[in-house]
Amino acid sequence: MSHKIIRTIPRADAGTVGVLGACGVATVHEAQGRTGLLRPYMRPIYPTARVAGTAVTISIAPGDNLMIHASIEICKPGDVLVVAPTSECTDGYFGELLGVSCQAHGITGLIIDAGVRDTAELTAMNFPVWSKAVSSQGTVKNVPGDVNIPVVCAGALVNPGDVIVGDADGVVVVARERAVEVARAAEQRIAKEEKSRERLRRGELGLDFYGLRAKLTELGVEFVESAESVASVK
Amino acid sequence: MSHKIIRTIPRADAGTVGVLGACGVATVHEAQGRTGLLRPYMRPIYPTARVAGTAVTISIAPGDNLMIHASIEICKPGDVLVVAPTSECTDGYFGELLGVSCQAHGITGLIIDAGVRDTAELTAMNFPVWSKAVSSQGTVKNVPGDVNIPVVCAGALVNPGDVIVGDADGVVVVARERAVEVARAAEQRIAKEEKSRERLRRGELGLDFYGLRAKLTELGVEFVESAESVASVK
Amino acid sequence: MSHKIIRTIPRADAGTVGVLGACGVATVHEAQGRTGLLRPYMRPIYPTARVAGTAVTISIAPGDNLMIHASIEICKPGDVLVVAPTSECTDGYFGELLGVSCQAHGITGLIIDAGVRDTAELTAMNFPVWSKAVSSQGTVKNVPGDVNIPVVCAGALVNPGDVIVGDADGVVVVARERAVEVARAAEQRIAKEEKSRERLRRGELGLDFYGLRAKLTELGVEFVESAESVASVK
Amino acid sequence: MSHKIIRTIPRADAGTVGVLGACGVATVHEAQGRTGLLRPYMRPIYPTARVAGTAVTISIAPGDNLMIHASIEICKPGDVLVVAPTSECTDGYFGELLGVSCQAHGITGLIIDAGVRDTAELTAMNFPVWSKAVSSQGTVKNVPGDVNIPVVCAGALVNPGDVIVGDADGVVVVARERAVEVARAAEQRIAKEEKSRERLRRGELGLDFYGLRAKLTELGVEFVESAESVASVK
Amino acid sequence: MSHKIIRTIPRADAGTVGVLGACGVATVHEAQGRTGLLRPYMRPIYPTARVAGTAVTISIAPGDNLMIHASIEICKPGDVLVVAPTSECTDGYFGELLGVSCQAHGITGLIIDAGVRDTAELTAMNFPVWSKAVSSQGTVKNVPGDVNIPVVCAGALVNPGDVIVGDADGVVVVARERAVEVARAAEQRIAKEEKSRERLRRGELGLDFYGLRAKLTELGVEFVESAESVASVK
Amino acid sequence: MSHKIIRTIPRADAGTVGVLGACGVATVHEAQGRTGLLRPYMRPIYPTARVAGTAVTISIAPGDNLMIHASIEICKPGDVLVVAPTSECTDGYFGELLGVSCQAHGITGLIIDAGVRDTAELTAMNFPVWSKAVSSQGTVKNVPGDVNIPVVCAGALVNPGDVIVGDADGVVVVARERAVEVARAAEQRIAKEEKSRERLRRGELGLDFYGLRAKLTELGVEFVESAESVASVK
Repeated sequence: MSHKIIRTIPRADAGTVGVLGACGVATVHEAQGRTGLLRPYMRPIYPTARVAGTAVTISIAPGDNLMIHASIEICKPGDVLVVAPTSECTDGYFGELLGVSCQAHGITGLIIDAGVRDTAELTAMNFPVWSKAVSSQGTVKNVPGDVNIPVVCAGALVNPGDVIVGDADGVVVVARERAVEVARAAEQRIAKEEKSRERLRRGELGLDFYGLRAKLTELGVEFVESAESVASVK
Repeated sequence: MSHKIIRTIPRADAGTVGVLGACGVATVHEAQGRTGLLRPYMRPIYPTARVAGTAVTISIAPGDNLMIHASIEICKPGDVLVVAPTSECTDGYFGELLGVSCQAHGITGLIIDAGVRDTAELTAMNFPVWSKAVSSQGTVKNVPGDVNIPVVCAGALVNPGDVIVGDADGVVVVARERAVEVARAAEQRIAKEEKSRERLRRGELGLDFYGLRAKLTELGVEFVESAESVASVK
Repeated sequence: MSHKIIRTIPRADAGTVGVLGACGVATVHEAQGRTGLLRPYMRPIYPTARVAGTAVTISIAPGDNLMIHASIEICKPGDVLVVAPTSECTDGYFGELLGVSCQAHGITGLIIDAGVRDTAELTAMNFPVWSKAVSSQGTVKNVPGDVNIPVVCAGALVNPGDVIVGDADGVVVVARERAVEVARAAEQRIAKEEKSRERLRRGELGLDFYGLRAKLTELGVEFVESAESVASVK
Repeated sequence: MSHKIIRTIPRADAGTVGVLGACGVATVHEAQGRTGLLRPYMRPIYPTARVAGTAVTISIAPGDNLMIHASIEICKPGDVLVVAPTSECTDGYFGELLGVSCQAHGITGLIIDAGVRDTAELTAMNFPVWSKAVSSQGTVKNVPGDVNIPVVCAGALVNPGDVIVGDADGVVVVARERAVEVARAAEQRIAKEEKSRERLRRGELGLDFYGLRAKLTELGVEFVESAESVASVK
Repeated sequence: MSHKIIRTIPRADAGTVGVLGACGVATVHEAQGRTGLLRPYMRPIYPTARVAGTAVTISIAPGDNLMIHASIEICKPGDVLVVAPTSECTDGYFGELLGVSCQAHGITGLIIDAGVRDTAELTAMNFPVWSKAVSSQGTVKNVPGDVNIPVVCAGALVNPGDVIVGDADGVVVVARERAVEVARAAEQRIAKEEKSRERLRRGELGLDFYGLRAKLTELGVEFVESAESVASVK
Repeated sequence: MSHKIIRTIPRADAGTVGVLGACGVATVHEAQGRTGLLRPYMRPIYPTARVAGTAVTISIAPGDNLMIHASIEICKPGDVLVVAPTSECTDGYFGELLGVSCQAHGITGLIIDAGVRDTAELTAMNFPVWSKAVSSQGTVKNVPGDVNIPVVCAGALVNPGDVIVGDADGVVVVARERAVEVARAAEQRIAKEEKSRERLRRGELGLDFYGLRAKLTELGVEFVESAESVASVK
């Protein structure tokens, strides 16, 4: 088994990444056909955390953060680290010092299917992290891994160069090749939702303007006036 | 299998609901004999979330939110949606647009044994949600279900018309028929606790004024002066 | 089986405890050789919670909080309660009234491998708690247990008199006998990290000043210029 | 809070119970419209375990098995104990001696949303148990509870007198009032499945005889000859 | 979003698949550099289950098994179904009738990151299944999905045509393009292990013939004669 | 941090170990006052697995099995390896070759708070293992650890030289110093249970001969004839 660090990866253009970030995770996930979502156990370390950037992917051993150190010099401003251990682990691979180093190199966030520590300091620095756990458990620097190979992170396939969007709702990955198309669809969705929002705010029912009444009928769901036939437990 | 949406349900009076809400989850749970608590995995999407209202219950398929849309028109101001999938699911059944629609109809909160999305927007709107997960995963609108039948939500039986109370400690359900009695007991408990609080604040021991010293003796628990007999691990 | 409450335990001196608290969980855990960390499921009830103090240990039955009441009179100012049920339990053993009683006796925090309730009130009182769950589920006062015996709490051995440090990153225990030595090592670590922080902030790479490049070579990790050999999934 | 043990409950007739047991869990669950299934974490202690009988329900405190002892004298041959703790617990509430006592009174199985012990002995006795955990953790006999009130067990509402069916696939509950109707539907389903089985065995496709091809077309699912457009990751 | 069923996929040759199956999961996982393992929650429904075959991949909605039905006609003898829901689900997507249909078409097993039912019948038929859950929960046939696109199943990327190996230790996937090379490496590993086994059986220590003593010394691990310095807890 | 391998540990005598093994986990756990049980997630790899022996304890890094190799030469016939990773891990630290090596040195079983592989081979060899997971995930041999220091394994403190008992119900640890006393208490318990078993088999009620009727009355639990007051849900 040889291991490698790929220096050069393709990236989506900054404008597209910005649009995706502005649209947010739920909208982007819908806009690309409900795909690309990381498992919901991936939570931000502070509620206002937001990020959009290019994935630099890191495949790493359980309890060993050598490859995170090895990844930084090949990053460019606007990149986001995506760290996937080769087996399930909650250790605290990443803390304040790595956060300082990331910010010095323009890296704007971390997605890690494992643990993170120094969360108060990272929050104060406004360095956003989505992780599976908060844990102080230290890691070693002994085991090789890879940077910029395709990884599965929290159940989603991430290729190096893909676009990562993270917010309070979680994390979604957009394939780089589809980024422009998805950004456009996301913007359209937002425009359309603005109209729906207005109608809903005025009291119109989704049942009506999404045309779901016919669906209910077709599925045999009946409106029944009285609760007579449903006994309650006292 | 036929499915139905029951339009009319009995409701507790607003005053009783208000008292229960003011007392809070822990007190109400105690006041009704330590029953009715939903599983502790049900967490609010923001720490100051609070709700008290009438349960409109929704039995729903995994990954399908049709019946949430179908429930809104039969709700009244002060109602709380209680959503229970027929099998375990973390999908994001509910987001900002449904929140807008709920607020337009006076619905004051959501209890969902599944996922929710657009949590930043729902927080900004002050629409409280207690859920099992935060997830952007979209749902479809294809599968029938029921509105206002008895459901099991996060381990607790909820009948339509029951009172739901939610706060930072979780969610409790009060059977509608018992609401007045439980509200009264909860208020009495609060009055009594105020007295205990004062005595505890002055340094009195619960051991004394709850009369627990005799209990310790009866159970054979001894006070021992020195730690001599307990070795420590170095 | 006899049960006992040990009145007198050794304690680390306040200065040492203060240093450990100021250093924080991650640093203390590293300073003592990456040991003593409680499982990461132990989370604070509010993000700014911090504590450092002497462990008063409580071994307790599932769903029964008698021994917490029994522990308070033997505590001294600066103590922290460490509660370990004899089998897994998420019940709400501890709430506001016990918090008031603790504060009246100078107890500065609670570590409980189970549930806690009245979290809004405890937050308002600034009484920090790290727990496995937030749950209103009430407990009884029927079953004997022990105070100040060695316990396993969230996977870590805690002896009475050990030093407990808790912050946003979790909880760590330091053996009392090692507290001075660990405090010194923690301070040294902080001084050293301050230097690393400066170098990292200026853009130096951990790879260089930790001397990890040689390690990568030794492990056969190669830097590769182009991503050619890595196909992406479209 | 008063607690009670209800001596007399209605029961489904033995013939109906026998039919339901012969049909098995999956078929019965389908025959009653995909309802009544207990959560899949409920597993039998041995692979060939099977049971069908009348539910005697037991609401019980965490770590306390007093009410199991209290339930036995009101049981009749063919009953199945259904035990639901008031909060989540994995303790070993039930072991060989209780199994012997159950068999002496004709009780044919146990469904417990908690732990069980002496599993080798219970297996040798052919006393089937479905539980959430196997655990030797002993319980006490101090806390009151109820026998034959409605309980929520592993996510399903069980009323005393309901029919319980358990096999290698898990556990399902059938409301007593619907037992005859469900048994009939289950038998019809088995007859129908026998025909489907024959056709499938001969190689016919479900896609054809369930008429699903039209569905695929309607949903826009296309058959594509070649895999050209789908890149693989090397 | 369009969905598709790819009819034709490349396959590894039967001989290679046979070798991989004979070597077993642990050996194959090692032989390909400790990659490709599915999460350990994937368990066989009976202890002697074994399979090796070509992956036909199925991306499917939660609670909807339409696409499993749609996949069968494009399978060839020796194929294994690999089913990945688009969000976490434990429903029983697959039972005896689908097993009969699979066997009629030469499909030799199922890997499903969800639930399975009729496990006694599938065991009797000797149709091996690895799943996340055993559950009778029925599914619907309403939601489109895809057959033979790359999927992430239980944390591992599976491309259509890859080789799947399953046994008592779990499931591993081998990229089709690497199958010959991995099969060769696996056989070499088995030959080498046979020699190690003999030496170990005679009492030789792995510490010696793997040359690990030097490693221990280098890492500063000392052999200490007496346990004096390690206190025990009484 | 220095690490060490303690060569010589005290051991309980073989006769006492044999008695404890014959009594089994549940009885031994009761006989020592309901302490010493490992968490119930520790399951045997085959249902008939049984072991009793002296604990050789191993503290180990996540994903690194070097210290298991290092432990074997200091073991004596009748020892049982007790392996505790320093953070949560499910990797397959142990397989057939280590099992062969263990058997060559008289080691009679393995307790590991992590994963194990080659479970079919270990079963065929009759080498019993209790683990948290079955996983083929390979481990490295790079990180130091300790042999024969006190460890917390699956929630229980284990000192080197303690007695380990494992069977179908899980695993219990007995402090070496208490082994004789616990063995005696366990035998007495078995004798007493034999009498209870006979009475229960004849139909006597535990409620009567354990004297629990008075307890029920004292706790206010009433026997009620009819189910009238309990409504059922239809």
